[in-house]
Amino acid sequence: MASASVIDFGPLEGALPEGALILEPDRMAGYRFDRANDPDAGTPRAVVRATSTPDVQAAVRFAGEHGLAIVTRGAGTGLSGGATAVDGCLVISTERMRGIEVDPHTRTAVVEPGLLNAEVKAAVAEHGLWYPPDPSSYEICSIGGNVATNAGGLCCAKYGVTTDYVLGLTVVLADGTAVELGGPRLKDVAGLSLTKLFVGSEGTLGIVTRIVLRLLPAPHPPATLVASFASLDDACRTVLDITRRLRPAMLELMDGVTIAAVEDLTHMGLDRSAAAILVMQSDESGDAAAREIETMSGACEANGATECYFTTDPEEGEAFVAARRMAIPALEGHGSLLLEDVGVPLTRLGDLVLGIAEIAAARDVRIAVIAHAADGNTHPLLVLDPTDTDQHRRAHTAYGEIMELAVSLGGTITGEHGVGRLKQPWLGHCVGDDVLALNRRIKDALDPRGLLNPGTMFEI
Amino acid sequence: MASASVIDFGPLEGALPEGALILEPDRMAGYRFDRANDPDAGTPRAVVRATSTPDVQAAVRFAGEHGLAIVTRGAGTGLSGGATAVDGCLVISTERMRGIEVDPHTRTAVVEPGLLNAEVKAAVAEHGLWYPPDPSSYEICSIGGNVATNAGGLCCAKYGVTTDYVLGLTVVLADGTAVELGGPRLKDVAGLSLTKLFVGSEGTLGIVTRIVLRLLPAPHPPATLVASFASLDDACRTVLDITRRLRPAMLELMDGVTIAAVEDLTHMGLDRSAAAILVMQSDESGDAAAREIETMSGACEANGATECYFTTDPEEGEAFVAARRMAIPALEGHGSLLLEDVGVPLTRLGDLVLGIAEIAAARDVRIAVIAHAADGNTHPLLVLDPTDTDQHRRAHTAYGEIMELAVSLGGTITGEHGVGRLKQPWLGHCVGDDVLALNRRIKDALDPRGLLNPGTMFEI
Repeated sequence: MASASVIDFGPLEGALPEGALILEPDRMAGYRFDRANDPDAGTPRAVVRATSTPDVQAAVRFAGEHGLAIVTRGAGTGLSGGATAVDGCLVISTERMRGIEVDPHTRTAVVEPGLLNAEVKAAVAEHGLWYPPDPSSYEICSIGGNVATNAGGLCCAKYGVTTDYVLGLTVVLADGTAVELGGPRLKDVAGLSLTKLFVGSEGTLGIVTRIVLRLLPAPHPPATLVASFASLDDACRTVLDITRRLRPAMLELMDGVTIAAVEDLTHMGLDRSAAAILVMQSDESGDAAAREIETMSGACEANGATECYFTTDPEEGEAFVAARRMAIPALEGHGSLLLEDVGVPLTRLGDLVLGIAEIAAARDVRIAVIAHAADGNTHPLLVLDPTDTDQHRRAHTAYGEIMELAVSLGGTITGEHGVGRLKQPWLGHCVGDDVLALNRRIKDALDPRGLLNPGTMFEI
Repeated sequence: MASASVIDFGPLEGALPEGALILEPDRMAGYRFDRANDPDAGTPRAVVRATSTPDVQAAVRFAGEHGLAIVTRGAGTGLSGGATAVDGCLVISTERMRGIEVDPHTRTAVVEPGLLNAEVKAAVAEHGLWYPPDPSSYEICSIGGNVATNAGGLCCAKYGVTTDYVLGLTVVLADGTAVELGGPRLKDVAGLSLTKLFVGSEGTLGIVTRIVLRLLPAPHPPATLVASFASLDDACRTVLDITRRLRPAMLELMDGVTIAAVEDLTHMGLDRSAAAILVMQSDESGDAAAREIETMSGACEANGATECYFTTDPEEGEAFVAARRMAIPALEGHGSLLLEDVGVPLTRLGDLVLGIAEIAAARDVRIAVIAHAADGNTHPLLVLDPTDTDQHRRAHTAYGEIMELAVSLGGTITGEHGVGRLKQPWLGHCVGDDVLALNRRIKDALDPRGLLNPGTMFEI
């Protein structure tokens, strides 16, 4: 519960631009939840819509003086509850910090955290450049949130994840100090790798207010291959057969439940009888792309694909990728979703997918599976009837069992969504007590009072 | 000076395999220096040639019990003095830890730290795979040292540095605990990015005993372009003209002093009259490589190249790259070297190179410049007469001035060699007091007694 003590917000209001401080309960309601929709979300004491690093510093210092917990949020699209408000906290929203400067020579961009991933992509594309990481939510998620969670996406098996593109950060620390780490330099080993430490720290170590991103030249337009399979096992064997030969620009898997939901929504002609579809792309140049597509379609056929479709038309290819991205909204039409994000070493992908089906049967819960198959990161989606409380109980049991299964296969409880509040109870099981203690030592060194995003990643 | 107290090494000897503990002064002499040849190198109390993680744990626990400083070393090729012994320390050498297991499906390798970079490359090449980072010393430097310094190399502007290929680590902490961080998973956000924190930590936070590396498919054979320029300025403008259009697989610069030294050694016909040579490569597939070479040669001609030579013969191309790698040994024939490693944002490369020439003139010191030009990382090489003490004094002044120049241009005091002991006094100037304090907080949290590599990166 929010503390009942009276706090004079006047000094904070005076330190901020007009309209940056929100104290009205109804206006604060929109800052309680992220997309994890945690029913236990708390109610903030105040919201600061920061416009600059000094705004964030003022908010952090004020919170420190009054012992208020700080929850930072970008676009609020997090799926693990890392941006869920806690009772009586100060929410710092970066939604108004939206600047970007692109330098084509150093192939870098300096970006403020509130800009959306899609807006970063668009701004750099004007210079013929490309920012690769592409969470499925790229049109609605912020780059600051991407940095906070070390977000992944569809292109990552070939192009890496967010941290691979972060060269520098400005971070406001728990005491309000702002530090500049790294910069527009591809090589820099002056001191510990602090930039990398803050990427993926989910707002628990500091607040990122400025990001220096590494960019790539624009890729070639992709060629796309779509294959249907009569069994998930055939599809998983195909994945391994492809990845040991080449590095596809994309290799996505949808299971039968997902295919049906997407087809219901799009009527694009996906094969409803298939147990799995793989969507594959090559973005190599002409002749090399043709060779990659040939290798991939050969692997599909050798592993029993029932259908194979190939297009070099980027728009047509994008329609299949969009169908894959539509999986979550499509399944949301069938119930409320509990989203998983487990990953395994690629050789265990088949075991993971099979094990999830067994858990679904044992717990009598409908689980759709989509996967960034080439990097072993899967999103089992538990599809729930919001009114069925017994099903909810079984689903939460299954949710834990899926994580335990992934860990038993040498995997992780979260590949790209983050630990947040939802998965915090399983972190120790995943990394072990010694690594958990090591995480805690870093946390305590940087946030000794535990004011930064309490409950996320670390037990309160 | 070494402490005079008597320590019974029997318990340590008993915990280690036969022959792992060295106590004889003459046998320890080879473990005092790295390639920085620091005249202030200390004398170790003992050397442990570890064969396994438990050996390292035993050594660390013994050192802890007796309050001995620990200096870890791989192949001893460090250029910043990060593997220089301190008086009375326990040296842990990883030279005998040389295992490697390659998994072509997950495209990863599990490697022990003592394996040489070239041996990693060779072992994974047997599976058609490639480990990109390529320090010029790749034939003699260890992968553990590469991880400790976050080493770079020639291919980094396109392919990134060591940290971009490290997915997991086993690390022995200061208290002897061994932790496993990350693993063979391209995506894993379960907890803080601790794997990345240890990469580049130069033995100051823990001792790396096992590394999980991400690998790439073998690249296409490169096409090579070599261009000569009458001025360094022309060459630097060419670099910018190229990097704003494409991402070369290699773009190396040698200045006139270097060209002459390499030509003296190789007699391969390099243009001695040139003020600079650029060595460029494309490793795209056939048609794309041809387009890249055309773009690069066009940029060379537009910026006044006096000569341009192009070959698709990989062996002939490698001869030019080998000439570039030979720069340091070639210049060692002309005197003792003081090696610099400063980097700047690419747009300031010309200012840096010009400023270095001014410092060389003002201090009357011969400075050769080689540069990984596409990433702004330069290696000014101060060529010294070992008998000229006044020159040595002037050289050390110049050494500091070059670092200050790089920082004033928005750059770093070390791009890929590490801070070590040699650059520790300049670290604060480079990163600022707040960032230095942040580094120290992490160090104190993980090594509260300061036993791990004292004097490297952090002031004792």
